[in-house]
Amino acid sequence: MHDTLLLFGATGDLSQRYLFPSLQHLLRDRLLPPDFRVVAIGRSEHDDGGFQAWLRERIDTPDARDAAALDDLLRRTHYIALDLGDEQAMVAALSPYADRPSVSYLATPPDLFVPACRGLKAAGLLEDPSRLVLEKPIGRDLASAHEINTALKDCLDESRIFRIDHYLGKAPVQNLLALRFGNTLMEAVWHNRWIESVDILVAETAGVDGREGYYAHYGALRDMVQNHMLQLLALIAMEPPSMLDADSIRDEKRKVLRSLRPMSVADVAGNSVRGRYADGVVDGAAVRGFRHDSDVETFVALRAHIDNWRWAGVPFRLVTGKRMPSRTTEVVVTFKPVSHWVFERPSRERARSNRLRMRLQPEETIELGLMGSLAAPEWGATELQPMSLDLSMSPSPKRRIAYERLLVDALKGDQTLFVRDDEVEAAWQWIDSISNAWQGANTPVQSYPAGSWGPTEAAAFLPATLSGNGHGKKPS
Amino acid sequence: MHDTLLLFGATGDLSQRYLFPSLQHLLRDRLLPPDFRVVAIGRSEHDDGGFQAWLRERIDTPDARDAAALDDLLRRTHYIALDLGDEQAMVAALSPYADRPSVSYLATPPDLFVPACRGLKAAGLLEDPSRLVLEKPIGRDLASAHEINTALKDCLDESRIFRIDHYLGKAPVQNLLALRFGNTLMEAVWHNRWIESVDILVAETAGVDGREGYYAHYGALRDMVQNHMLQLLALIAMEPPSMLDADSIRDEKRKVLRSLRPMSVADVAGNSVRGRYADGVVDGAAVRGFRHDSDVETFVALRAHIDNWRWAGVPFRLVTGKRMPSRTTEVVVTFKPVSHWVFERPSRERARSNRLRMRLQPEETIELGLMGSLAAPEWGATELQPMSLDLSMSPSPKRRIAYERLLVDALKGDQTLFVRDDEVEAAWQWIDSISNAWQGANTPVQSYPAGSWGPTEAAAFLPATLSGNGHGKKPS
Repeated sequence: MHDTLLLFGATGDLSQRYLFPSLQHLLRDRLLPPDFRVVAIGRSEHDDGGFQAWLRERIDTPDARDAAALDDLLRRTHYIALDLGDEQAMVAALSPYADRPSVSYLATPPDLFVPACRGLKAAGLLEDPSRLVLEKPIGRDLASAHEINTALKDCLDESRIFRIDHYLGKAPVQNLLALRFGNTLMEAVWHNRWIESVDILVAETAGVDGREGYYAHYGALRDMVQNHMLQLLALIAMEPPSMLDADSIRDEKRKVLRSLRPMSVADVAGNSVRGRYADGVVDGAAVRGFRHDSDVETFVALRAHIDNWRWAGVPFRLVTGKRMPSRTTEVVVTFKPVSHWVFERPSRERARSNRLRMRLQPEETIELGLMGSLAAPEWGATELQPMSLDLSMSPSPKRRIAYERLLVDALKGDQTLFVRDDEVEAAWQWIDSISNAWQGANTPVQSYPAGSWGPTEAAAFLPATLSGNGHGKKPS
Repeated sequence: MHDTLLLFGATGDLSQRYLFPSLQHLLRDRLLPPDFRVVAIGRSEHDDGGFQAWLRERIDTPDARDAAALDDLLRRTHYIALDLGDEQAMVAALSPYADRPSVSYLATPPDLFVPACRGLKAAGLLEDPSRLVLEKPIGRDLASAHEINTALKDCLDESRIFRIDHYLGKAPVQNLLALRFGNTLMEAVWHNRWIESVDILVAETAGVDGREGYYAHYGALRDMVQNHMLQLLALIAMEPPSMLDADSIRDEKRKVLRSLRPMSVADVAGNSVRGRYADGVVDGAAVRGFRHDSDVETFVALRAHIDNWRWAGVPFRLVTGKRMPSRTTEVVVTFKPVSHWVFERPSRERARSNRLRMRLQPEETIELGLMGSLAAPEWGATELQPMSLDLSMSPSPKRRIAYERLLVDALKGDQTLFVRDDEVEAAWQWIDSISNAWQGANTPVQSYPAGSWGPTEAAAFLPATLSGNGHGKKPS
């Protein structure tokens, strides 16, 4: 396990909200090596004391152990103010840390990836076995992503590049792999003979607030679908790998992404909806619409098809939006109805298709929906009722931040939950087909009131499990 | 719903332990018709008051509602002492009750079935739409069963004959039908491609006590396997009926029973074990062995095969015995292991095949055993653990006696949970093949100590789920 972490963007939002708290928890739980140290790099002028004071204000210490862990973390942290465009300054400030193998984590805006990488190389911090961790987005389309990947590979080998998608660090994603590959009952049904459809929903209540510049350049398709949602889709849809090592899994994910049917101008009309939120009400508070002179979407609904033997004919519905009624991230695998219904009318009306439902937000769960029978008090024929089984084994006392696991994996060098260059590019290739088709078809951006489930045109894309989705579907 | 119940054997064990308490509960829950009446027929000389006093001592009244229901039941009950061999006396005593359609329930020794039936017919109590309910055993082999069925059909039509197997009235059996036919996940895997084996275990702690005469004439094979266990087997193994009406289900059950591969002299050596309990200890108390000069078995283990497309190659292991270490009735469907194991060593050691486990005794439950993943504190690879999901929907406040449901069904005329003549005979045909083969092969009856899981020769027949089965298998 490497014991030096260089954290770029140390005063940014991601660092203070997730990365430092994750490190605090890992220290508390003694999951980091004894000589672990953090070099925190930011643009703000702080000395160590100033940075520590600044960070202390931003990190929770619910109990004495957390407080002690925070003290420990601050003791191990050295702050350096640095302009990542200035290669000479980087070499001067950082080369002392080339004494031990390190992990450099770029929690910075994407335009700094390549200059930071060059500076790190010049400072000797990317020599084997040192590693580099990057946050999304990797590029804005296939061409720019390829350019970044090429530049990175000039600095270090792909085997030491860790592209984070923090969804992959969440417990239900681990559990999904366990369920898919550890159970005959899943092996038997995990294909188009028995699966009717797959829904992937990422709904946020937040708006674009404060990120207008970035967002107007990306939009929901590039910001959410290209990475998080396609990663979930790939894990659901991949062929079983022969082994669970990083490259076996990533080979399979890449195959899925390459099998996504590109969308043409003719396809996008029926298989996509773009939306942008207007004024409305979220959580009881009036909020303003997103106004920007670009035509960027804050909502997208897609019906994707995977052109291979396992998934032919199974729609994958991807829906994401800002300013939705609730913060919900879920994947729902809906199985086909039973071939023939033998029970009586009341049961038929209550009948639901079997379903595997993996939630990442607001809580982390996996549920299996089956039909069971009540010992009906009226003693009629066998009466069926839907039941929901909780498959998320451990009601873990402390819920882990997804970054905790990913930080440990990066320090250990396990790439399984990180995204490989060719996956990124395969995902962009499909995303580009959609944005090009939208352009070619002049696909309109429909308005929706903030606090609704998107434009009415998108109703058919929403999962049936969504309660009160505002389009007349029954609540689950 | 018929409202007259003639209960023969009214002072017998079954009546006082199950039938009268069932009627009490049904009255309490207002599930019987307003003019419901019971004619209780026994050999003992009681007047109504005497019978009521006798019965009152034997029925629990945990609360005021139960006490009121018992009063109500006694008010509706008229007792008649009668010798069922005396047809003239039967006509004289019972013909007044031919005024309304009735259900006659023979909770009597089997040798009284035919005479009682003739007396009832003479008294006008078997005219359409009146019905007849019989307890097991129907015969002692195919020939005697056929003889009884023929005699019954001289008195009334098969559509009005209700052969009770009270296992079919238990809630998990209903739930099994709901699960099998209401869920795609079960439809998909319910055959030899995905099912490895089926275990049916009926273990009693009780001995033969008090029934030596009957038992020495029957033995475990005829007493338990022919009826209860083959009925469970038939429900597990039947093809999906097109409808859930009585004859559709019974047609399918009969097909299964007829597809049981008969055992030859060559087969029984490897596919059956007979045992008889010797002195031993059950529940901490020393008990004496079963001594009788017949060579009858109190324990039997069988490996059955169903010769059809769905079940070719899947062993059905049937085990039943008296004086076992615990009172356990369960059916375990074990699925095949996943085709290929991708997880690491610790998970492989914990790996269990998926399993559906239906328990009828001591508690009534259905559980599904799957593998899930823990968020492992050591942050290693995905680690799997077995988990058990409760599929028995309603933690019903009051557990129903199986006879409650069956009594209502008989009063209503629903034959779904009753056994048809041809099912009984198909079951006997297979049972006869075994007892004949035993005779031909001189199959020995192995001794086992009371309080053990049978002869050591039977270890390979016992379900893996059995904890502490005394033959070195791991507890579940």
